[in-house]
Amino acid sequence: MIKVGIIGATGYVGGELTRLLSQHDKVEISFLDSRSYASMEYSRIYPNLKNIVEEKCISINIEENFDEVDLLFCALPHGLSQEAVKKVLNKGRKVIDLSADFRLKDGAIYEKWYGVDHGATEELKKAVYGLSEIYTQEIAEAQLVANPGCYPTSILLSLYPLLKEGIIKTKGIIIDSKSGVSGAGRSPSDANLFAQCNENLRAYGIGVHRHIPEIEQELSRAATEEVTVQFTPHLAPMTRGILSTIYISNDKKAAYRDIEGIYDSYYGAQPFVRFLGEEEYPQTKAVYGTNYCDIGVKIDDRTNNLVIVSAIDNLVKGAAGQAVQNMNLMFDFKVDEGLKQAPVWP
Amino acid sequence: MIKVGIIGATGYVGGELTRLLSQHDKVEISFLDSRSYASMEYSRIYPNLKNIVEEKCISINIEENFDEVDLLFCALPHGLSQEAVKKVLNKGRKVIDLSADFRLKDGAIYEKWYGVDHGATEELKKAVYGLSEIYTQEIAEAQLVANPGCYPTSILLSLYPLLKEGIIKTKGIIIDSKSGVSGAGRSPSDANLFAQCNENLRAYGIGVHRHIPEIEQELSRAATEEVTVQFTPHLAPMTRGILSTIYISNDKKAAYRDIEGIYDSYYGAQPFVRFLGEEEYPQTKAVYGTNYCDIGVKIDDRTNNLVIVSAIDNLVKGAAGQAVQNMNLMFDFKVDEGLKQAPVWP
Amino acid sequence: MIKVGIIGATGYVGGELTRLLSQHDKVEISFLDSRSYASMEYSRIYPNLKNIVEEKCISINIEENFDEVDLLFCALPHGLSQEAVKKVLNKGRKVIDLSADFRLKDGAIYEKWYGVDHGATEELKKAVYGLSEIYTQEIAEAQLVANPGCYPTSILLSLYPLLKEGIIKTKGIIIDSKSGVSGAGRSPSDANLFAQCNENLRAYGIGVHRHIPEIEQELSRAATEEVTVQFTPHLAPMTRGILSTIYISNDKKAAYRDIEGIYDSYYGAQPFVRFLGEEEYPQTKAVYGTNYCDIGVKIDDRTNNLVIVSAIDNLVKGAAGQAVQNMNLMFDFKVDEGLKQAPVWP
Amino acid sequence: MIKVGIIGATGYVGGELTRLLSQHDKVEISFLDSRSYASMEYSRIYPNLKNIVEEKCISINIEENFDEVDLLFCALPHGLSQEAVKKVLNKGRKVIDLSADFRLKDGAIYEKWYGVDHGATEELKKAVYGLSEIYTQEIAEAQLVANPGCYPTSILLSLYPLLKEGIIKTKGIIIDSKSGVSGAGRSPSDANLFAQCNENLRAYGIGVHRHIPEIEQELSRAATEEVTVQFTPHLAPMTRGILSTIYISNDKKAAYRDIEGIYDSYYGAQPFVRFLGEEEYPQTKAVYGTNYCDIGVKIDDRTNNLVIVSAIDNLVKGAAGQAVQNMNLMFDFKVDEGLKQAPVWP
Repeated sequence: MIKVGIIGATGYVGGELTRLLSQHDKVEISFLDSRSYASMEYSRIYPNLKNIVEEKCISINIEENFDEVDLLFCALPHGLSQEAVKKVLNKGRKVIDLSADFRLKDGAIYEKWYGVDHGATEELKKAVYGLSEIYTQEIAEAQLVANPGCYPTSILLSLYPLLKEGIIKTKGIIIDSKSGVSGAGRSPSDANLFAQCNENLRAYGIGVHRHIPEIEQELSRAATEEVTVQFTPHLAPMTRGILSTIYISNDKKAAYRDIEGIYDSYYGAQPFVRFLGEEEYPQTKAVYGTNYCDIGVKIDDRTNNLVIVSAIDNLVKGAAGQAVQNMNLMFDFKVDEGLKQAPVWP
Repeated sequence: MIKVGIIGATGYVGGELTRLLSQHDKVEISFLDSRSYASMEYSRIYPNLKNIVEEKCISINIEENFDEVDLLFCALPHGLSQEAVKKVLNKGRKVIDLSADFRLKDGAIYEKWYGVDHGATEELKKAVYGLSEIYTQEIAEAQLVANPGCYPTSILLSLYPLLKEGIIKTKGIIIDSKSGVSGAGRSPSDANLFAQCNENLRAYGIGVHRHIPEIEQELSRAATEEVTVQFTPHLAPMTRGILSTIYISNDKKAAYRDIEGIYDSYYGAQPFVRFLGEEEYPQTKAVYGTNYCDIGVKIDDRTNNLVIVSAIDNLVKGAAGQAVQNMNLMFDFKVDEGLKQAPVWP
Repeated sequence: MIKVGIIGATGYVGGELTRLLSQHDKVEISFLDSRSYASMEYSRIYPNLKNIVEEKCISINIEENFDEVDLLFCALPHGLSQEAVKKVLNKGRKVIDLSADFRLKDGAIYEKWYGVDHGATEELKKAVYGLSEIYTQEIAEAQLVANPGCYPTSILLSLYPLLKEGIIKTKGIIIDSKSGVSGAGRSPSDANLFAQCNENLRAYGIGVHRHIPEIEQELSRAATEEVTVQFTPHLAPMTRGILSTIYISNDKKAAYRDIEGIYDSYYGAQPFVRFLGEEEYPQTKAVYGTNYCDIGVKIDDRTNNLVIVSAIDNLVKGAAGQAVQNMNLMFDFKVDEGLKQAPVWP
Repeated sequence: MIKVGIIGATGYVGGELTRLLSQHDKVEISFLDSRSYASMEYSRIYPNLKNIVEEKCISINIEENFDEVDLLFCALPHGLSQEAVKKVLNKGRKVIDLSADFRLKDGAIYEKWYGVDHGATEELKKAVYGLSEIYTQEIAEAQLVANPGCYPTSILLSLYPLLKEGIIKTKGIIIDSKSGVSGAGRSPSDANLFAQCNENLRAYGIGVHRHIPEIEQELSRAATEEVTVQFTPHLAPMTRGILSTIYISNDKKAAYRDIEGIYDSYYGAQPFVRFLGEEEYPQTKAVYGTNYCDIGVKIDDRTNNLVIVSAIDNLVKGAAGQAVQNMNLMFDFKVDEGLKQAPVWP
């Protein structure tokens, strides 16, 4: 049994962490930090957790409260958790940061895409990119894990193995992703109002979304050469889920059985990545509320393209679930501890 | 560890039973019966259960397959499970029937409201109405449990204790219920098409819905006098959930603390009924995918009315979840075994 | 051709007014007032109106801009339009106010339910309650019309004729209304976020909603005695639409043909109220985006109750559409001028 | 004033035609044909049209009923309208066919993709492809118009001018389209059930969808060389709307002002295509229920790609609205007659 704290516990990622950890047999929640809701019962903000999570929110004192926890989850917006991360690392404790702050190895790239200075470039060096199925061993040994973004998770689980094994081209990758509205977070704005999102579908941030450098960094590591991608995110009228449809010219003439073999070697022993088989395509409902990533493939001989489709729940595998999976790796728990729920259908 | 079979495993109630039982530590699924999908992999129909449920559907032979199971779940439409129920009872095994066939004590009332003859009136006498929190002891000892309807569950958990304790009037009860579309089942029709249900809300079956005699039977048992209710179901543009808003004239001047006290004495030790406190009202999202029933109360002194609002997931507490809860009672498992998932939010 | 101005043009009601007026052959829009978006192109806020409405928003100067308009629409939140209304009336121009400020005849009741002082009680005396089909003649002659609330419109069109004709009881009326989320307005908050409203249904403000005094005022006028109602609003996961389900004890033994006859005499010559016939119930989709109000009735002999169901689009018949209808009456245009669009289905 | 008949009037496309034609000042509907609903009031199937369309459905006799109409709309599934089309053409009347049967110039390609023989290859030669803004003159003179498919319309309006003007590459075009569920039609099936489509997003028919040959035929005409595209349709949880996101390598170094100029020259005088300006992207809600097609463009210098996004309502511009627009062209009515409704927002 370990003790964990969550800072930024009342955003959607914090809420999802709290839900998952409340069902984890090896974890005790020490505190649920929130500036806005300090001293309010947590279940008044997350009524799903009535009688399940009895804690009140507190606004933590970093010096005091961090002593008591074995692991800190930071679920704050980017730019806000660097001080907390430094302090926890100094105390020799572990951290999983769910913001973008420790994902990019190069502080200059962070500053370019996020438009703010990076105040913890030393700590950046210690950070392990927390793509659970790929960097399993490094995560297990890490003190600081930078939990991946939601779009990158759906994309990297699909592409990393194929690029790493050199079976696909590195040029001309097109990624068309569609996300549920919870990905826009819980801060109310015109962009995440029910009335404006319902019965609506739109593209945004084409070619400029902040997840692009993260995607390219990791694809470049896989390919051991610089990879540039065309990435278009869309907002779809649903609460959860990311579906990424990825297009690559199949100049290397990959066959279905090659691809299946590679996925099987990377994920066959992993509980959360489900490869669906030829011309079977994933759907977001089939992973709703869970840590699964479903992947399907089309090899289109008519056009000489490969089309890969993946589905995740943006708040679980794309955020809190992967963070819990990483915690399991870091503390040598079973990898699916606390994450075994079957998705609900319909 | 017991062995169970499900007949009618591919409808939404059957799908939900399969999902819940796949996560139940004391249960092994012997067969998933389906006439339409015999020999198809179950996870092709329920893609959420890919890698979780590996079975294929079979079209069972009643004589053979029933020998191997300790408990049979019947998840067929009304009128279709009576023969199977008879056979299983004759073999001395247990049955939980999720159709309407064994809920009404009086075969004549069944025939009047359902428009078909009842072919198992002897077995009817053995049936225990499976409202888990109310008939706990009878269920534990039953061989045949008639699992309650979805609307009745949301209504009876609210009203039964108050009528039983005589704190509210028995006349003039108005029940306005709103259900998600999964309540209409999986058989495709004009009435459950996405395009016609989305962005739409409507009333149907006012005063003639088949759940009325079931509601009145149980409220009359509670009140020990005949209770007649005005019941209006509505179809709301959501997949799951029932919200019932119930109006009773507060002629008996019930005070909030009386009502709270009664609910506490009935449900305080029960894991699945959550009483929300004064002027806190339930919402369907807070019980999504789980076996909870949330209840809130308004005592309106201006109008001299009591307003009670309850929320359940129609497929879980309103069907498959309550069936699993009843199984737990019948086999002396912990009452929440296999039902501990926290609801997802948002 | 008249000139009109809209203050508060960028809220949802203002947006709907602008859409409808852009298609009205007898109206020219003089200004679209907005403090927040002054000098922004209107179609950047309402992209549906790209190439249709070319105006920019302006922050109006009351003294100057009001001279040029024949009619002012005030679509501000309650409490904010009283000064503007006074000024326009002083200039001898006409006003339709879509807030709650001029609906309640008794300033004291306004102050009690809205919790603010009323600063224009003199003007209150001039205000005509703008329920188009009922107060047609008064509206035609009015200088100031108080446009009804959305819930009240759906309820009053159903009940006013029956109470006026004395065919139903005045005691014990229960009203259960369900509204789409656009009714909560465009100001972003936790309560109208997509992720929290989608796949969710909840009751709110039971017995304390601010539309109650408005409903009771008008029902009391119809009945010529004091009428008190039990009113429960619900938030349903859809953008538009109100469905009101109304329960009245049928002690006066109204027959279906009596009710049909009354509705026919009130609405038979009116284009926007559609009575659906016996046991035909309305659905919100059938009135989507339009000024229709559909009404259906169930006479339940088993319970001795009358159940009336009505459906409107909260932003059209419940706000901007009825305002345009009232303008048509005030300026002697055809009553359905600019309002002839057929609803979209599905 | 002309007389028109609709065969297949009760499908979603037929319903939309009926709605639009009921508001068209130059058209009288002679008959609404339906085999399934013969002699039922049309407004019982389409309750939105209560009091607007008073006709009953009839099952037409081709010989008799066709004499009375100036124009026949065929809104049947593919393969079913060829006989009717032949007969009407023989009588010297005009036809707009909304199925796929007359869109492909080459009967052999039709047979390959649709898997059925084509029984009217002679008539095929007379058919004009009804992309209103592109083939305006041919449509005006046509006796038989093949109304375009929904996906093709959203794609061709974006790409045709750019290929025709030679400003973009013809190789490697990737098209990622997302459609609302009404595109799947009104025949109930597992695939268009509310409960399975809501809160779900999925790809289907990758590389094999039947609209591919239609898209390629028209793009090849524009480019005057053979164009092959990668096309992926998706099903999104909304009733209406298609958003197509199109990727092309910008090897020809098109600049934003070039593209804007081309669109302006093709569409500047057309009422229904709205070009949104640089880095402004369309959303389906902004065209809901109307005949608009909104287009936005991103020139991504970082990746050397062009990304074009377009939005239409699949049932209006993608089907019935474009058919009415084509009728306007064929009978020399104003091009936007009957199509002037502004989209509803939110």
